[in-house]
Amino acid sequence: MTPATTPAQLDAALRWRYATKAFDARPIPAGVWKSLEQSLQLAPSSYGLQPWKFLVVTDPAKRALLRPNSWGQSQVTDASHLVVFTRQTSVTEADVQAFFDQMVSERKADPSKLEPYRQMMVQNVAQGMPAERQREWAARQVYIALGQFMTAAAVLGVDTCPLEGIDPAKYDEILGLKGTRHETVVACAAGYRSADDKYAGMAKVRRPLDQVVVRV
Amino acid sequence: MTPATTPAQLDAALRWRYATKAFDARPIPAGVWKSLEQSLQLAPSSYGLQPWKFLVVTDPAKRALLRPNSWGQSQVTDASHLVVFTRQTSVTEADVQAFFDQMVSERKADPSKLEPYRQMMVQNVAQGMPAERQREWAARQVYIALGQFMTAAAVLGVDTCPLEGIDPAKYDEILGLKGTRHETVVACAAGYRSADDKYAGMAKVRRPLDQVVVRV
Repeated sequence: MTPATTPAQLDAALRWRYATKAFDARPIPAGVWKSLEQSLQLAPSSYGLQPWKFLVVTDPAKRALLRPNSWGQSQVTDASHLVVFTRQTSVTEADVQAFFDQMVSERKADPSKLEPYRQMMVQNVAQGMPAERQREWAARQVYIALGQFMTAAAVLGVDTCPLEGIDPAKYDEILGLKGTRHETVVACAAGYRSADDKYAGMAKVRRPLDQVVVRV
Repeated sequence: MTPATTPAQLDAALRWRYATKAFDARPIPAGVWKSLEQSLQLAPSSYGLQPWKFLVVTDPAKRALLRPNSWGQSQVTDASHLVVFTRQTSVTEADVQAFFDQMVSERKADPSKLEPYRQMMVQNVAQGMPAERQREWAARQVYIALGQFMTAAAVLGVDTCPLEGIDPAKYDEILGLKGTRHETVVACAAGYRSADDKYAGMAKVRRPLDQVVVRV
């Protein structure tokens, strides 16, 4: 396959990216947003189990309610899009079965050949992890999706700001997640930086490459 | 900034990506690898604290030792590159101070203006989290870097395989991490798929877009 970009262009995009503090009102064009939604759908996860759901909060009233539960950060209301990354509260044998059935169907596979894979997922995740570890495992997968989303946005020239400083319980309440199988982990605003955002021009502060990537 | 790629090219790259099971011997060219290292260095993290180190295991003897501690997966020895993602075992006030000092220096900033930011990092991370939560927080950040790395690789046409099924304690032993401030969280192989990898041609199994990305 022809690569989608070059090392130089990728570097430039990742250096251009920063945690945007001030967004302007420009909306992300539909085609670009569709691609970002697909980057969420296609994100890698452990066993491919996708223990997540991504809520795109389009209702301005909901965004207004979320803001005070996010340290008042303006990105929550001002960015073109706000995505709330949720995890499943548990991964059950039925979840594994549903994924397995879809895999068998879409790959036209012999279920008996895939059976060991199903058993591995059941033993290692659905049954093998205590409830709390399952939730943390799911949170880590959600962070892969967050990483993929921010990188995808950067190469498409879309600004983002990850929002960890939020109140997940309040988010769950406002978004109607209480009592469902999903709960808020983290959020991310996406859109376009405001010309006034003084953070845009600041040097990116990173450990020296040779201290952070070490050959052994 | 001109975007590094287009929605169509990004989609194609993310659909081309899969958890590569069989790598061939082709090495990643130095310029491409450099860009992938930089994608690790530039990965976003909470407060920018980068609570991680990435080990690139170049010693074939070490890779041979790691493989039996990775369910024998061939990617560990066969892929062009193997990256072990480690987290800091803790985040201390001294870590915050070092980051703060670098920020002040590189941004030629007034330390007194940034002081509230330093205090927030100390209160919310270095002092505010019990040891176990700090470690999990650091693991989540590492997963952002993992996501960025795999996405960066995909847009550069490089194959990857995330490796969660590894024995972190054994990895720490083999890589000399015992007693240091870093410990293994997850690994990722990178290189080029073998023409023999039957998984390359299989349909990607994902939940339907409208079930996984939901507007509210």
